[in-house]
Amino acid sequence: MLNLKIFAGSSNIDLAENICAHLNIKLSKLNINTFSNGNISVEILENVREKDVFFIQSFSEPVNRNIVELFVAMDALRSASAKRITAVIPYFSYSRSDKKDAPRISIAGRLMADLIKEAGANRVLTMDLHSDSVHGFFSMPVDHLTAIPIIGEHVRKNMDLSSAVAVATDAGGAKRVGRFVNFLNIPMAIIDKRRINDVKVEQGLVVGEVKGLDAIIFDDEISTGGTLLATAKTLRDAGVRKMIAAVTHPVLCGAALHNIKRSEIAQVIVTNTVSIHEENRIKRLKVLSVAPLFAEAVKRINSGESIGALFR
Amino acid sequence: MLNLKIFAGSSNIDLAENICAHLNIKLSKLNINTFSNGNISVEILENVREKDVFFIQSFSEPVNRNIVELFVAMDALRSASAKRITAVIPYFSYSRSDKKDAPRISIAGRLMADLIKEAGANRVLTMDLHSDSVHGFFSMPVDHLTAIPIIGEHVRKNMDLSSAVAVATDAGGAKRVGRFVNFLNIPMAIIDKRRINDVKVEQGLVVGEVKGLDAIIFDDEISTGGTLLATAKTLRDAGVRKMIAAVTHPVLCGAALHNIKRSEIAQVIVTNTVSIHEENRIKRLKVLSVAPLFAEAVKRINSGESIGALFR
Amino acid sequence: MLNLKIFAGSSNIDLAENICAHLNIKLSKLNINTFSNGNISVEILENVREKDVFFIQSFSEPVNRNIVELFVAMDALRSASAKRITAVIPYFSYSRSDKKDAPRISIAGRLMADLIKEAGANRVLTMDLHSDSVHGFFSMPVDHLTAIPIIGEHVRKNMDLSSAVAVATDAGGAKRVGRFVNFLNIPMAIIDKRRINDVKVEQGLVVGEVKGLDAIIFDDEISTGGTLLATAKTLRDAGVRKMIAAVTHPVLCGAALHNIKRSEIAQVIVTNTVSIHEENRIKRLKVLSVAPLFAEAVKRINSGESIGALFR
Amino acid sequence: MLNLKIFAGSSNIDLAENICAHLNIKLSKLNINTFSNGNISVEILENVREKDVFFIQSFSEPVNRNIVELFVAMDALRSASAKRITAVIPYFSYSRSDKKDAPRISIAGRLMADLIKEAGANRVLTMDLHSDSVHGFFSMPVDHLTAIPIIGEHVRKNMDLSSAVAVATDAGGAKRVGRFVNFLNIPMAIIDKRRINDVKVEQGLVVGEVKGLDAIIFDDEISTGGTLLATAKTLRDAGVRKMIAAVTHPVLCGAALHNIKRSEIAQVIVTNTVSIHEENRIKRLKVLSVAPLFAEAVKRINSGESIGALFR
Amino acid sequence: MLNLKIFAGSSNIDLAENICAHLNIKLSKLNINTFSNGNISVEILENVREKDVFFIQSFSEPVNRNIVELFVAMDALRSASAKRITAVIPYFSYSRSDKKDAPRISIAGRLMADLIKEAGANRVLTMDLHSDSVHGFFSMPVDHLTAIPIIGEHVRKNMDLSSAVAVATDAGGAKRVGRFVNFLNIPMAIIDKRRINDVKVEQGLVVGEVKGLDAIIFDDEISTGGTLLATAKTLRDAGVRKMIAAVTHPVLCGAALHNIKRSEIAQVIVTNTVSIHEENRIKRLKVLSVAPLFAEAVKRINSGESIGALFR
Amino acid sequence: MLNLKIFAGSSNIDLAENICAHLNIKLSKLNINTFSNGNISVEILENVREKDVFFIQSFSEPVNRNIVELFVAMDALRSASAKRITAVIPYFSYSRSDKKDAPRISIAGRLMADLIKEAGANRVLTMDLHSDSVHGFFSMPVDHLTAIPIIGEHVRKNMDLSSAVAVATDAGGAKRVGRFVNFLNIPMAIIDKRRINDVKVEQGLVVGEVKGLDAIIFDDEISTGGTLLATAKTLRDAGVRKMIAAVTHPVLCGAALHNIKRSEIAQVIVTNTVSIHEENRIKRLKVLSVAPLFAEAVKRINSGESIGALFR
Repeated sequence: MLNLKIFAGSSNIDLAENICAHLNIKLSKLNINTFSNGNISVEILENVREKDVFFIQSFSEPVNRNIVELFVAMDALRSASAKRITAVIPYFSYSRSDKKDAPRISIAGRLMADLIKEAGANRVLTMDLHSDSVHGFFSMPVDHLTAIPIIGEHVRKNMDLSSAVAVATDAGGAKRVGRFVNFLNIPMAIIDKRRINDVKVEQGLVVGEVKGLDAIIFDDEISTGGTLLATAKTLRDAGVRKMIAAVTHPVLCGAALHNIKRSEIAQVIVTNTVSIHEENRIKRLKVLSVAPLFAEAVKRINSGESIGALFR
Repeated sequence: MLNLKIFAGSSNIDLAENICAHLNIKLSKLNINTFSNGNISVEILENVREKDVFFIQSFSEPVNRNIVELFVAMDALRSASAKRITAVIPYFSYSRSDKKDAPRISIAGRLMADLIKEAGANRVLTMDLHSDSVHGFFSMPVDHLTAIPIIGEHVRKNMDLSSAVAVATDAGGAKRVGRFVNFLNIPMAIIDKRRINDVKVEQGLVVGEVKGLDAIIFDDEISTGGTLLATAKTLRDAGVRKMIAAVTHPVLCGAALHNIKRSEIAQVIVTNTVSIHEENRIKRLKVLSVAPLFAEAVKRINSGESIGALFR
Repeated sequence: MLNLKIFAGSSNIDLAENICAHLNIKLSKLNINTFSNGNISVEILENVREKDVFFIQSFSEPVNRNIVELFVAMDALRSASAKRITAVIPYFSYSRSDKKDAPRISIAGRLMADLIKEAGANRVLTMDLHSDSVHGFFSMPVDHLTAIPIIGEHVRKNMDLSSAVAVATDAGGAKRVGRFVNFLNIPMAIIDKRRINDVKVEQGLVVGEVKGLDAIIFDDEISTGGTLLATAKTLRDAGVRKMIAAVTHPVLCGAALHNIKRSEIAQVIVTNTVSIHEENRIKRLKVLSVAPLFAEAVKRINSGESIGALFR
Repeated sequence: MLNLKIFAGSSNIDLAENICAHLNIKLSKLNINTFSNGNISVEILENVREKDVFFIQSFSEPVNRNIVELFVAMDALRSASAKRITAVIPYFSYSRSDKKDAPRISIAGRLMADLIKEAGANRVLTMDLHSDSVHGFFSMPVDHLTAIPIIGEHVRKNMDLSSAVAVATDAGGAKRVGRFVNFLNIPMAIIDKRRINDVKVEQGLVVGEVKGLDAIIFDDEISTGGTLLATAKTLRDAGVRKMIAAVTHPVLCGAALHNIKRSEIAQVIVTNTVSIHEENRIKRLKVLSVAPLFAEAVKRINSGESIGALFR
Repeated sequence: MLNLKIFAGSSNIDLAENICAHLNIKLSKLNINTFSNGNISVEILENVREKDVFFIQSFSEPVNRNIVELFVAMDALRSASAKRITAVIPYFSYSRSDKKDAPRISIAGRLMADLIKEAGANRVLTMDLHSDSVHGFFSMPVDHLTAIPIIGEHVRKNMDLSSAVAVATDAGGAKRVGRFVNFLNIPMAIIDKRRINDVKVEQGLVVGEVKGLDAIIFDDEISTGGTLLATAKTLRDAGVRKMIAAVTHPVLCGAALHNIKRSEIAQVIVTNTVSIHEENRIKRLKVLSVAPLFAEAVKRINSGESIGALFR
Repeated sequence: MLNLKIFAGSSNIDLAENICAHLNIKLSKLNINTFSNGNISVEILENVREKDVFFIQSFSEPVNRNIVELFVAMDALRSASAKRITAVIPYFSYSRSDKKDAPRISIAGRLMADLIKEAGANRVLTMDLHSDSVHGFFSMPVDHLTAIPIIGEHVRKNMDLSSAVAVATDAGGAKRVGRFVNFLNIPMAIIDKRRINDVKVEQGLVVGEVKGLDAIIFDDEISTGGTLLATAKTLRDAGVRKMIAAVTHPVLCGAALHNIKRSEIAQVIVTNTVSIHEENRIKRLKVLSVAPLFAEAVKRINSGESIGALFR
């Protein structure tokens, strides 16, 4: 691996070290300081001149601090004459802000893509953006990995799929679930969210057959678990037999754990794109590692091999 | 309307004149020449210094010639010192190229957004982009209109909705249909496209209840009508009672007319974002005008009124 | 005031309302939400098309969240077609990061200036940057106000200046103090910080006459108060009679209050560029308002009057 | 040839294969599709990461489609992480649009130069631009080849130059002919086009001696052949003995063939920068290949050798 | 004239005051200082916020100092919040550097166009660029005036044109002379410069009829007068009767005066785009004022009237 | 040294050759011409494709001509396909223009940084900028060397430091002197410049102990020597014993030599960042060479070694 150096921000050092372990290299050293006035300073402790640098940072909580940390780090790397800087963003939270569904808001996913470039990134490596179009928000090369094969393989090995159905939590998720069911060759259903009347209560209608089937609720991220809980209830009322959930990004904040525990969801399969607090590592949560996939992608980017091959 | 000037490219002069009529102004004059070597030249025939200029061009066939015509026109307007140039693109064909679903392709929707800006546009006014995220491809203000209220109102007045269901032609269309059924307060279904086996044949599964119902196939554009025809067959097999289709952009090329005629679709509702050839104006095609909506949007952009209000 | 609209971020709403009060207008409305995954969303609740918009945000704690909030707000304003967006940043914390005093760090003051522009600002209005050169980090017009006249006038009215001396806390502050003593026509001194030996202990040498004089320690910001405390000790050892401190930005974090209380500094004069927590509003802290100055600057920027005149 | 890959658009595959043959490499593979709505899609079928890519596309008819095809291809190559992309444009039609000879038109040569860059090109390799200054329209390195030595050598070998004169078809062509006559060491003449009176009829005056001489009409491109025909008539009236024509770019559209045939021009010497339809390959047309020159230029650009040497 | 302010650099204050006189306004005030280390400082002495500013500077000697002065002035104006800055460059010397006629040189005309924009200009107003294509070097609106009508009218009134011929000093000037003879309706000729042999001596051949005619040598600029002198000799040898010269820009450096005096050129007609030193104001030099034309252009740019009309 | 090529502008060829000598390579060849109209042309005489090029130019008199020469040279190098262009600017005169100390002036240091980039530089290598923050004016990597160790070592070897004090010529220089005294471990003092009253006379007050000590007046540049002379007088009045001066950049213009000679400053230590005219090479001027340091920096930039190490 020619001139390769990997650095990590504060958000997910475990994953970074895991990726390095798969590549048989050491995570490079830096100091991240916070001054008393709150300013972040990043000091790169190794020479990076003419090096091919990867900086790993997930947009997990504290999201905005982690983003600014990434900006400052990339600027430090650029002014230290790194040859190429790849922002590795396993979880890009702002990909959820991908459209203008109210007047006078920011499509912040695009904004962040622009700021990441302005701060110094030459390319981006990321996973399971909220929608595929977010790829097009970046004006630099993006390698967009997916956890579908990792999650799919796990499900295939651990579950009887003969009476399984994958369920999208809303119409916007249908496309994502479409790819998942193509991988597993099982049927799909979606939850059609509606307001009952003007008093704003939302009701979930199940579109598609789920009665008597084993449902796999499939989504890109789980934060408070509220959506999952609501979906589980709707599915229960519609007569599903068993339920598990599979989501890529375990944001797991607020009442997430509580919601999972009180739900009828037997298991929640996630990946390690977001670092999971010790207290959240409950038995019902199954964590699959994306480190091998990221390591392989880093290796191929560095050596100029095709990454498309990773998806076949 | 202060300093307002509206010009039109070759693609849809009818719509342009219609918009002008609603605004009670004349379409401004220009000459579009094609030199013998194929070069396009656009000569603006009215003074546009310090004017608020709107240039109307749909990306209909010949798509790429119309796009280059737009580029040349905008550059001519810019170098002629127009104060502000709004590219009015009722039909933005490349919004369909909004993701990277194969290795080493262009997300051409983003590319076109960048080229439109480079050529001189200061803002864009468009309608029913293939996905909402395409809005975020533009690095300038975009006003994104929708024909859903126009089509929805028409459907409401002309159809008994008590046993209606709106159908998306694939999982990617679920979101779009989601907004449509919210407007009409009717249930939805989607076609889940699958390959039966390795021999690549596609099969459409209906997700959701359609049996005995009247289906409204809802999509953003109709080109050859192939998708529509396939969807109609799948729905017929699934036992729908009656079928109509509603799409915003009537691209209508190749065997479109033939396909519509031999289908069991009673009516195809479209708008005039794309100019419809005389020979395509058959009885089964119902064309609704978007000119009043575009005229209102132009007026508000020009005068600085809120456009968000148009959507409520 | 033509088409003027003022919005405020979360950091210093008091100051924003104060500025509006001086201008006799209402603070405009917006919603700032934090989604469960930590993403910020800013929804502008008033039409801003063709308006001259000022957005007020201090880079106080949580600094990095406030910065991202500013970015998102400016992008929302830009895409909502504001005519001009002025980022009003009473306290620009990253101006302290104005040089490369270690290898491989970011000059984050410049980085933030670039990101603020990329996010949508057309101009900046700020106060007492750490060094004058930070002005040059911005590639857009900046109006750089100073609190020296406000603080100077207050000192002149409340203190016998016949035996006063102004003191810079280090060599880098000499220039700033130079302007302050020119305003008050009093002598100056500086603290020359040195390491005694390799064991890294810092020692402050007083350069200039301070014995028997009343010292005004003058600085741009106070965070933990550590520098102030150390300076006070050094001055005490050097035989000053009385001491007060005057700083523009009251960051006041960590042990600040405690440090002030246990010091021999009779009074700390600050301004309201940073919002001061209720518990920090102790008697020894004198807060001067910069709202009239900012209001006047906003008025002149809006109407195209000279701001240079404000400094004479 | 290190990491070299050559791709070709639809416009001139013959030339591309010819260039590859001279370099002893294979033309790389891609798929160019046109969707039913007219959108172009380019799929690069070989890994191009860290490769030095050349994309060959002439701006021949359909000019604007070919240009958009080039844009989409370059964007695909860029997002596929090509190391460097050279747009090889043997015939750059828009170089004729190099000045503002009417109010409110676009200098489209400059516009295209900007769009080519925006679409992803890092450098350009082209031949015989309409005027030398068009080189300066590009904001990236351009290698500007000329066919003068190729055409000149051919003329020298096949024609008695003792009584030859080279003729520019208008005053704007004098500079170009100046270089040609310097190469062959023969005298020159120009056609001075004038309107006889207000009724717009153009008359060509011959400036310089042509009586009894053998004329070589020299131009950069031939499209309908109208200019050539008019020039031939003027020269005939002025008493020339024999006439041939030499032009770099054989656009050959409309009545070109007919015009050539009915003219007294004994031979039209062209190059293969533009692909010539089978039916246009008449005996009076002599096609010289520029492939060896382009191949040599590609080789030198790839290896970092001087290209200036090619012109001596 | 709304919010109009005109400033002038050091190069041609006479012309600037003349333009102002025609507009009935005062030239605005600034200080241009040169520090002892050679740095230029420009201090704008009037408020320019929201003003429409024109800065007049010819690229006459000291050319490069004047250019840097223009850069510094425009940056000062921009940071002082001028609404729009028009660089008025009556003589743009670097337009002569418009092609790459040797390997590894700069097309400095394009470079200067880019730097002028980077320094803050929003538009350019200039006259008689060396070639029309230089217009396309600028990526902002340019109004390109010509002195041909001014010079042409003067010639028409003061000379018997019945036996006149206009002569280009080389093939590159043929296009320019072509426009001049169209205006006056007289014949043209060109000097075809050649090397006699390898020993590099240049010989001028006359292309076209000049014998017994009165020649008007027409060029864009006269610097040392060397080209003029050589042309005069060639024309004399070819048997012309009388000679005058007409050039737009009187650079007049080195032996210019001497060369004019010892030539057989009866009169040299120039304009005042370049300031003429007192000692150069000899009788044989006729200076025509372009101030009225520039004044009219400024007025129209400011008020948004068409400038194209100026050329008819 | 891989693919390294060093070129020099007109300003300081001695230093350039010196640097080359330390690197054991030849200074590469170019032609710098000035046309009769004052235009500069730079012709690179060696192939630079894919080369790592360094261009050495100090901003010494004629400053603005040298700057434009640098612009033209960099553009020539860029268009000649140099791989990387480092502008080596030993003396960057405009770093003195680093703040806005009067209304409506340019922070020309920032402007020049932007223009240098626009003209083609990829990175900058410079020395002792007027203030550290000027580093942040550049939007590309900068290696900012300092002569403090070179000057400091010389002073340490040639002077008894037991009773030495370093003196800043004004408050703004305190920071610079602070680093110098840290290097030598001696005390510091500063001159506090004041106006006595409204009649604008400046008076220098000494802040800090100097009586009976040997003063080293330390500054970044000496132009006319006026500041030095004034400082020497103030120090004399304050009772210093002996005086020397140490400045990095010997601009030495106007009465510089005369001022030095008539002062009581025993020696003026400078470096060769600026070329010193033969007549200025007086005995009292001690010139230290920075060539070894620049050579080492060039070597490390070229090979990708850390430069930070140079400062320890």
